[in-house]
Amino acid sequence: MLIVMHHHATAEEIKAVQAAVTALGFRSEPIPGKERTAIGVLGNQGYVDDGTILELPGVLEVIHVSKPYKLVSRDFHPAASEVRVGEVVLGNGLAPVVMAGPCSIESEEQIVTAARLVKSAGAQILRGGAFKPRTGPHSFQGLGIEGLKYLRAAGNEVDMPVVTEVMRIGQLDAVCQYADLVQIGARNMQNFELLKEVGKLDRPILLKRGMSATLEEFLAAAEYILAEGNSQVVLCERGIRTFETATRNTLDLSIVPLVRELSHLPIVVDPSHATGKRSLVPVMAKSALVAGAHGLMIEVHPTPETALCDGAQSLTGEGFADLMDQIRRLLPVLETC
Amino acid sequence: MLIVMHHHATAEEIKAVQAAVTALGFRSEPIPGKERTAIGVLGNQGYVDDGTILELPGVLEVIHVSKPYKLVSRDFHPAASEVRVGEVVLGNGLAPVVMAGPCSIESEEQIVTAARLVKSAGAQILRGGAFKPRTGPHSFQGLGIEGLKYLRAAGNEVDMPVVTEVMRIGQLDAVCQYADLVQIGARNMQNFELLKEVGKLDRPILLKRGMSATLEEFLAAAEYILAEGNSQVVLCERGIRTFETATRNTLDLSIVPLVRELSHLPIVVDPSHATGKRSLVPVMAKSALVAGAHGLMIEVHPTPETALCDGAQSLTGEGFADLMDQIRRLLPVLETC
Amino acid sequence: MLIVMHHHATAEEIKAVQAAVTALGFRSEPIPGKERTAIGVLGNQGYVDDGTILELPGVLEVIHVSKPYKLVSRDFHPAASEVRVGEVVLGNGLAPVVMAGPCSIESEEQIVTAARLVKSAGAQILRGGAFKPRTGPHSFQGLGIEGLKYLRAAGNEVDMPVVTEVMRIGQLDAVCQYADLVQIGARNMQNFELLKEVGKLDRPILLKRGMSATLEEFLAAAEYILAEGNSQVVLCERGIRTFETATRNTLDLSIVPLVRELSHLPIVVDPSHATGKRSLVPVMAKSALVAGAHGLMIEVHPTPETALCDGAQSLTGEGFADLMDQIRRLLPVLETC
Amino acid sequence: MLIVMHHHATAEEIKAVQAAVTALGFRSEPIPGKERTAIGVLGNQGYVDDGTILELPGVLEVIHVSKPYKLVSRDFHPAASEVRVGEVVLGNGLAPVVMAGPCSIESEEQIVTAARLVKSAGAQILRGGAFKPRTGPHSFQGLGIEGLKYLRAAGNEVDMPVVTEVMRIGQLDAVCQYADLVQIGARNMQNFELLKEVGKLDRPILLKRGMSATLEEFLAAAEYILAEGNSQVVLCERGIRTFETATRNTLDLSIVPLVRELSHLPIVVDPSHATGKRSLVPVMAKSALVAGAHGLMIEVHPTPETALCDGAQSLTGEGFADLMDQIRRLLPVLETC
Repeated sequence: MLIVMHHHATAEEIKAVQAAVTALGFRSEPIPGKERTAIGVLGNQGYVDDGTILELPGVLEVIHVSKPYKLVSRDFHPAASEVRVGEVVLGNGLAPVVMAGPCSIESEEQIVTAARLVKSAGAQILRGGAFKPRTGPHSFQGLGIEGLKYLRAAGNEVDMPVVTEVMRIGQLDAVCQYADLVQIGARNMQNFELLKEVGKLDRPILLKRGMSATLEEFLAAAEYILAEGNSQVVLCERGIRTFETATRNTLDLSIVPLVRELSHLPIVVDPSHATGKRSLVPVMAKSALVAGAHGLMIEVHPTPETALCDGAQSLTGEGFADLMDQIRRLLPVLETC
Repeated sequence: MLIVMHHHATAEEIKAVQAAVTALGFRSEPIPGKERTAIGVLGNQGYVDDGTILELPGVLEVIHVSKPYKLVSRDFHPAASEVRVGEVVLGNGLAPVVMAGPCSIESEEQIVTAARLVKSAGAQILRGGAFKPRTGPHSFQGLGIEGLKYLRAAGNEVDMPVVTEVMRIGQLDAVCQYADLVQIGARNMQNFELLKEVGKLDRPILLKRGMSATLEEFLAAAEYILAEGNSQVVLCERGIRTFETATRNTLDLSIVPLVRELSHLPIVVDPSHATGKRSLVPVMAKSALVAGAHGLMIEVHPTPETALCDGAQSLTGEGFADLMDQIRRLLPVLETC
Repeated sequence: MLIVMHHHATAEEIKAVQAAVTALGFRSEPIPGKERTAIGVLGNQGYVDDGTILELPGVLEVIHVSKPYKLVSRDFHPAASEVRVGEVVLGNGLAPVVMAGPCSIESEEQIVTAARLVKSAGAQILRGGAFKPRTGPHSFQGLGIEGLKYLRAAGNEVDMPVVTEVMRIGQLDAVCQYADLVQIGARNMQNFELLKEVGKLDRPILLKRGMSATLEEFLAAAEYILAEGNSQVVLCERGIRTFETATRNTLDLSIVPLVRELSHLPIVVDPSHATGKRSLVPVMAKSALVAGAHGLMIEVHPTPETALCDGAQSLTGEGFADLMDQIRRLLPVLETC
Repeated sequence: MLIVMHHHATAEEIKAVQAAVTALGFRSEPIPGKERTAIGVLGNQGYVDDGTILELPGVLEVIHVSKPYKLVSRDFHPAASEVRVGEVVLGNGLAPVVMAGPCSIESEEQIVTAARLVKSAGAQILRGGAFKPRTGPHSFQGLGIEGLKYLRAAGNEVDMPVVTEVMRIGQLDAVCQYADLVQIGARNMQNFELLKEVGKLDRPILLKRGMSATLEEFLAAAEYILAEGNSQVVLCERGIRTFETATRNTLDLSIVPLVRELSHLPIVVDPSHATGKRSLVPVMAKSALVAGAHGLMIEVHPTPETALCDGAQSLTGEGFADLMDQIRRLLPVLETC
């Protein structure tokens, strides 16, 4: 932590700040400059609340050097991690893992049909929502437990592990009974109580980035899960909220190589929610792989025109098969460049 | 809903869109223009998912006219609502209600001291956090149930109703045992499961705006609570996330008069979290009242320099008493202008 | 400047960074911590480009302590400045100055009518646009020089100084011939060439904040003007661009007290452009004054329903007179609280 | 345009709105719905200012269907355009064009060295800034005309066309004397006067997206240039401003395929300014090509550690040569997927 003093701070004010740092149990080191003095804080092992310091006379600002995460950091865990979902493994140097399926499970027939489509096209994990977070209460909210059963049945039918979202702690038992990979949605990225609970599971977690979460907050949210003992976490970039409305969200693809630098956890990309437009999904899916994503999450619906949710961003079975063909042609080159 | 066709859409494409609208159970009305045709959708009673339409050939975009909320809307409920918290009432034409207290409850002594300070200065509701949402898991997480008991004891001591945040459904019983007003924090504004549960309570709810929630989403979140039967909801503007980092968040004060136009629910403002800087809090508190806020939520700590959380934005007892004096001088004028 | 090293940075890497700092002509001071070493840079008198440092092995990040502005800073110029526009003066402790008039000058009759309306209601400066920045080229672009003449004639008629926007250096002579206060619009806030030119004028400048300008960039833009010798600058907050679309922009009112802390320059607020909605303008105008604005900029049109530009956010003459009445009742209280 | 009436709007209010539409010279078509009536506006050939309508009683909102651009739209100009810079051509189906060179021209030797490096690695256009837009006035502002001469000399030496930024109309003659492609920087994207002037040139223009410009505004800015007769415009995505500070800007790559849908103009991507971090540049450059970019703009400096500007995001000559090798391996695959 660095404490920056006002240009006109007095020697007494600087001493008082140093005393306050000492009282917190840390050491201080004044750094006199031409314009002003700064005071380095030494000996803290993590993030320090700056309220006690900021309030002292003569203090201009406090700059944090430590990060609110450590377990997820590559700084302290240099080797890249692998995460296993059933037989499927995500990680550096492995082929990217494609998770695909409908936004929401609408019927057993629908999810089984979807499962066959995505399996035959080459997807490795089946996705489908049973509990749906919707902006307003008057929209379709998902089939619930019934949906989970259909999803499991479909997964078994085509021999694929399945991923689905959990929205509350009370659903965790049910979700764990049926799902191989447990998803925390963007709206719950800072639902810290839910994070702590999934941190106690012996089950891989897919953590989606919050709509307005900085990368630092995203990694700190993952830290909640690791801090409880579960290090099987896959990050998922799905677009952030910006002023731009031409796409549903703004896909922040640069975060992918940056996460690979800063963290050892694998990261996948969801171009369907990020763009909200079917025509953009295949292009951005391929871009994501080039950016270094360890996998993709793609919405596929047998008949998007009748989908109860997010039809406009869902690929058809045919569209998805085309995309998978393109990805197969792209993969060999990725290894060489 | 309005469906805008491409400039070059054919008559067949237009007919197909109309057929799709009919299949959804609505009527369609083509509006031919010089540049392109648009198709009005009639007969829908609420928000319609546009996926099924957007996917048809020739469709450029779909424009929603209906809103994802209705019960919270003044359009359907013209009279302003009042919300009662113990003996305190928030609503149009009533004196603004000030909720004050520390960010987090640190000890019985601390919260009792704070309660006396804010009571004597004129606050009507005591605030204090027992469950704290923190960016990283290594920060102080609150005293939990122990804190709730201290808060209740402090409220009883000074005869004030108390407000505190609930973070998970499993905490609801405990929180309801001790608190008069139940707060949903910004990070949980779209924790729809929690919203549904508090919607079943016979207890007023303080709903804070999510960091990146549009006004439409904010009102739709309140709609979740009202849809379950609880119409005792107070909205709270607490700053949104923008590119500006000079303040902790960007206080969106214009939303206050706009909420008063669009909704019948009362709205309060939290200038402490919005600005993150003690020196800005009193000024923005008064601005909020002029903007039409039905109340304020202010962080006050007996000794901010030792606060475990948010010390830099907390007023001292003295600073808060000054603010309350200023507010008392301001109030008579507000009635005349 | 503070250079933060990686956790695993070697002693050699730290030495190399220190050598690079020395090569830049500054001194370095290592601050060893438990997790990592940071290196303080001493002796720089202003902002230093960090490219040369960031590129060295072992460097995690570079943190700037110096600001890209100095002349506008209260740190180096503690006394608040006053800016004079004709007989009107803006500054601390003075009555707020209201600038009012139509978005664009449409005819001599229109601007003269508007001038009489705003003068009789109590405005001190007449505003009107002759050169209009419009998103698309097919919208009304203003009357140009003809408009400037009408504006001057209207100002003379009612004995008010006038303010108008300049969009290019080539218009400066004409604008200076007719206007008392020269406005740089939001879209030109970082048109540095224009800033330099108005910095050479002996004429007060109204600098509007750019749509996505941080406070730091806003002050640095003003620094361009002061650096050329013109310190007669009035800042203007007019809303920033965020994800929220319920209002035209997001009025960042907290910046007002913050500017008063950080800079000696006066700041005014434009609630018309910020909100884009007539019904919100009076409320936010009053809030701005309570927030500490030294003045207001308000769009007023004799007949908003026929305005060629921004009619929806313009007050009528009557609406403006009502607002001015309310402001007059508010002012005495502002002095006491 | 669609006018949405309040739920409780009266028949008289609806009639009055229709009369106002007629007065504007358009036809109106009421669309009665269950919740409210909407009124379609027919016959307008472009964007209509909504001020006159929004002000009428009973009007809830006005929704625009027309766009503020037409000439840049694929709707009216279905065939993709090609833009020629010297011998180099940008457009659909052509190999992507790489523009490379230092952020700013620092000396003749520096730019000539850079030119040889980027030429030998395979770049087609040489970039270099002579007039530099800098946040604060105390940073290096570029060599000016002297720099233009060095750039031209370097371009001639290696037989490459050159691109450089123009910041004011007064520099246009000089820039046109030396540059083959004239760049409008992000900060000037809505410097409409400059846009109009370059619209009169017989010279290709590189238009960078403004930091907070929506896609609609970006295309409307290009429309200014085309409206003056110059249709040789290349768009450039260079990152937008968001809340995320982990990268310098947020690269909005999804805009690339969307621009290809909506407009006939070519679009290139600048990953250097977008990310601000050397380590992210090559990855995002390749992602941009997969996203459909017609070219790239890359900062390359012979010795980034001594660069006067943006050293941290500049590739070395070696790094750039590596990237070009990777791109050459990627290109054949792009044609097949």
